[in-house]
Amino acid sequence: MSNNLLKGKRGIVFGALNEMSIAWKVAERAVEEGAIITLTNTPVACRMGTVTELSKRLNAELIPADATNVDDLEMVFSKSQEALGGNIVFVLHSIGMSPNVRKKRTYDDLDYNLLSSTLDISAISFHKMIQIAKKMDAIAEGGSILALTYVASQRTFYGYNDMADAKSLLESIARSFGYIYGREKGVRINTVSQSPTMTTAGSGIKGFDGLMDFSDKMSPLGNATADECANYCIVMFSDLTRKVTMQNLFHDGGFSSMGMSLRAMNQYNKSFDEFKDENGNLIYG
Amino acid sequence: MSNNLLKGKRGIVFGALNEMSIAWKVAERAVEEGAIITLTNTPVACRMGTVTELSKRLNAELIPADATNVDDLEMVFSKSQEALGGNIVFVLHSIGMSPNVRKKRTYDDLDYNLLSSTLDISAISFHKMIQIAKKMDAIAEGGSILALTYVASQRTFYGYNDMADAKSLLESIARSFGYIYGREKGVRINTVSQSPTMTTAGSGIKGFDGLMDFSDKMSPLGNATADECANYCIVMFSDLTRKVTMQNLFHDGGFSSMGMSLRAMNQYNKSFDEFKDENGNLIYG
Amino acid sequence: MSNNLLKGKRGIVFGALNEMSIAWKVAERAVEEGAIITLTNTPVACRMGTVTELSKRLNAELIPADATNVDDLEMVFSKSQEALGGNIVFVLHSIGMSPNVRKKRTYDDLDYNLLSSTLDISAISFHKMIQIAKKMDAIAEGGSILALTYVASQRTFYGYNDMADAKSLLESIARSFGYIYGREKGVRINTVSQSPTMTTAGSGIKGFDGLMDFSDKMSPLGNATADECANYCIVMFSDLTRKVTMQNLFHDGGFSSMGMSLRAMNQYNKSFDEFKDENGNLIYG
Amino acid sequence: MSNNLLKGKRGIVFGALNEMSIAWKVAERAVEEGAIITLTNTPVACRMGTVTELSKRLNAELIPADATNVDDLEMVFSKSQEALGGNIVFVLHSIGMSPNVRKKRTYDDLDYNLLSSTLDISAISFHKMIQIAKKMDAIAEGGSILALTYVASQRTFYGYNDMADAKSLLESIARSFGYIYGREKGVRINTVSQSPTMTTAGSGIKGFDGLMDFSDKMSPLGNATADECANYCIVMFSDLTRKVTMQNLFHDGGFSSMGMSLRAMNQYNKSFDEFKDENGNLIYG
Repeated sequence: MSNNLLKGKRGIVFGALNEMSIAWKVAERAVEEGAIITLTNTPVACRMGTVTELSKRLNAELIPADATNVDDLEMVFSKSQEALGGNIVFVLHSIGMSPNVRKKRTYDDLDYNLLSSTLDISAISFHKMIQIAKKMDAIAEGGSILALTYVASQRTFYGYNDMADAKSLLESIARSFGYIYGREKGVRINTVSQSPTMTTAGSGIKGFDGLMDFSDKMSPLGNATADECANYCIVMFSDLTRKVTMQNLFHDGGFSSMGMSLRAMNQYNKSFDEFKDENGNLIYG
Repeated sequence: MSNNLLKGKRGIVFGALNEMSIAWKVAERAVEEGAIITLTNTPVACRMGTVTELSKRLNAELIPADATNVDDLEMVFSKSQEALGGNIVFVLHSIGMSPNVRKKRTYDDLDYNLLSSTLDISAISFHKMIQIAKKMDAIAEGGSILALTYVASQRTFYGYNDMADAKSLLESIARSFGYIYGREKGVRINTVSQSPTMTTAGSGIKGFDGLMDFSDKMSPLGNATADECANYCIVMFSDLTRKVTMQNLFHDGGFSSMGMSLRAMNQYNKSFDEFKDENGNLIYG
Repeated sequence: MSNNLLKGKRGIVFGALNEMSIAWKVAERAVEEGAIITLTNTPVACRMGTVTELSKRLNAELIPADATNVDDLEMVFSKSQEALGGNIVFVLHSIGMSPNVRKKRTYDDLDYNLLSSTLDISAISFHKMIQIAKKMDAIAEGGSILALTYVASQRTFYGYNDMADAKSLLESIARSFGYIYGREKGVRINTVSQSPTMTTAGSGIKGFDGLMDFSDKMSPLGNATADECANYCIVMFSDLTRKVTMQNLFHDGGFSSMGMSLRAMNQYNKSFDEFKDENGNLIYG
Repeated sequence: MSNNLLKGKRGIVFGALNEMSIAWKVAERAVEEGAIITLTNTPVACRMGTVTELSKRLNAELIPADATNVDDLEMVFSKSQEALGGNIVFVLHSIGMSPNVRKKRTYDDLDYNLLSSTLDISAISFHKMIQIAKKMDAIAEGGSILALTYVASQRTFYGYNDMADAKSLLESIARSFGYIYGREKGVRINTVSQSPTMTTAGSGIKGFDGLMDFSDKMSPLGNATADECANYCIVMFSDLTRKVTMQNLFHDGGFSSMGMSLRAMNQYNKSFDEFKDENGNLIYG
């Protein structure tokens, strides 16, 4: 179903890997809403993923590029403007990866070269993308730039490791650049802080199942899905949100505003059941 | 222009007074987007304002009611469901007034009966409205309830007086009830924190002109207008934001995320100009 | 052990009931640090509690008073200044009670007269206390006023009910009045957001045990005790924190900055154990 | 005057340059409160600054070290434990520098190698310091680690440039590591968000005078001085704050909780005076 919210708007979607990806859903929904887009991901991801299929289906040029490389980014904006026939109205940044997590380095045993990579891939790429776009004057007046983030940027979740720091940096870049690009070109820059989502990236995080369950039971509306996130991104790309900028927008079923729900507490309390006798008294040893 | 975002949805708009009102704009835009609505305001406001004209134009029943009175609120939901032919999908709460401000009582000289009124009118009415609606099961599964607020709930603005406390209470009610109504019926409850807006209410605040200018120069996108706010409310009523709840959403051109902009600082610095000689040096006495 | 942090300072402690009370501990520690103080609580609490014993031990006059009554509050400040021989340097507000909770009214079935009482007792009493003090010019230049609060003011905890809204209002009052009393007299006003504490008040909250355990396991330093809270209050009353104002200060072992800890997650995950077979696979009915 | 708050405690102060430095004041106050400390700064700073004088006066070994170099940091902790005769109870991180600011690169024209340096010097050094200390088990159970930050981490100030992002990252590291070091050793990690301060670092920021004035007029208690900040740090190092962790603590005279003060607004409004005639009407062109 379409509301024509992005009719004729030109967009770039970074980070679609496969049909579990939020970026994949955003690409599909953007086209459904009338946008014309290009897709980009790393050369490896372009080969490994099924993104070529998506590219064909959506009639969206696929541009392999390394988002940490400014020349590649320049090429992405240049080719996209060419392919789409004008400057860019919206951009999605859905990029994040921690080599420290991959190498199972704990937060108190980080490799600092890997930390640099985490920050470069997951946060600084966002600055590079915007700086290049601004230098090329590639974003339309009133355009909308979004990055995906997670509440771990603001509260600590065990195992999220240096990705938490990267997400904090990402959100700060959204604010810092939102000020400058806003005052000069009316371009808004925001982050969407999404529920934990069972994407390929998410599923790599330690103990992700338990966290998904807890998050779902804490959130009055349950975890938000990738499809629902795509809807929210569409709204943020549309002309109906032109005065929203420098914000971190929680799309999480209410999780971020919860301290403790009855459902989660009940589940938590079950953990003590085995230690209780038939009268409900705690059994010690 | 319409995107049919609220096609066939039934809504109630509290607080439209005249064409400067945000609620007025929301009513217009909601109908434009395909909604059918009722309007409500105090009996006095219904007589004084031009809301009757709006009611006719939008084919929206106007229901005079006191939002601090639970019987009146019950009547509003009852009549609205009758008039619209079903349960309610969205509600806007745009109600706020401080008798202390009106009586020019400063914050360190509050009249406590008037404070009770400020809280009752501007915040507790929101709880009453939701509690009544929930008891009547008057809101549709997945419905959306919004209240308008201002950043003074979180940071102190001189002269905003006990309205700041009322807005804090209002935002808390949105969270508290958002949890309960969310888990039980999937109803989301949010507040939109809008730029200072030159409505009839806004224009009553002491030194409002200077504040409007400062706010505009601080915000990279400038102050958001009432029309733009209406667009944002439409989005929050639509099905595209169904997992956003318990949030305070800033619609303010970026103001809330700014510490100091160059434009505002330049303006501020001009205030010292008269004390400088032709070489730019400060003149002391 | 004393650091003489409050040597010769005159203070008033509202809300000491018995030796579990945080206010009780604050009173003890304040005297230990060299302060001279008065104690006040409701007439009923003064009779029921063991606060008379404390009053004698600390050589601190006990002044029965209703903190929602401005005349009583005026009497408290008047008698305290008389008893202590000068204006007041620090005040602790440790007052909170919800008649709705007591009457087991759920949040979607509030009695609005009781809600008024909740707000009046738990939040507006703070405004009254400060307004009276300011009118009497009863607080010394650079004095320090503190109120105790809980993180439920900012994130929803099931069962905390209308106390969450009262605490939001309380924190807003601290900011609003902090601005005015700060600029005029250098008086700072802050709130301390304390871990759930097994006081008489805390123990009345539904499911408090489970919450205490969860909170403890979430907090890297564990829940903060009443004794530790008293230490923090002393610090906030001392001259070493004279430029801290309008803040909500978390004293909670880190809870407020946590999203999920490994300890809490492990405990949570145990709740699923009974549904797993000996190989760790989920057993479905 | 001393309250013996740090009697016998061993500490390390990073970043004292000259008598304007906050770190300098902290060192002085720490010793005054009974601590024994070491000082460290870059080899260049040790030569340029007058820190040698401080070192002698406080009888505090001065250890030249590059805080971005893990070997140097290991040496600092090793030498400090040796010099002080035991493990370390408190650490101050007062380090920040942006080569992009120095080279006058604007935020939309950052050099990415320089950005890496900004982050490494101003934020990652904090992680390195803590990781090394933890690996060496150099911090005492219940120890306290502080870093200095600025509100620009959370709201954008023009001209603060990539330091805003660095401070966001710094505050995130405090949370992330606060969780791990807290649960394992009871070590608390916090940041103090200080008023703009006329240090050597502060005075390098573009338009700092105007900002200082605005900040001072916005803050009900005025800007906090370096001396007052030192007092606050002492409190956070003491045993009276042992359950405060993972917090960003504003020490700013109330600035962070202000939206607009009357004093600042009056000053701002003066900027329009020149455009008004003798009747107060605006003169256009």
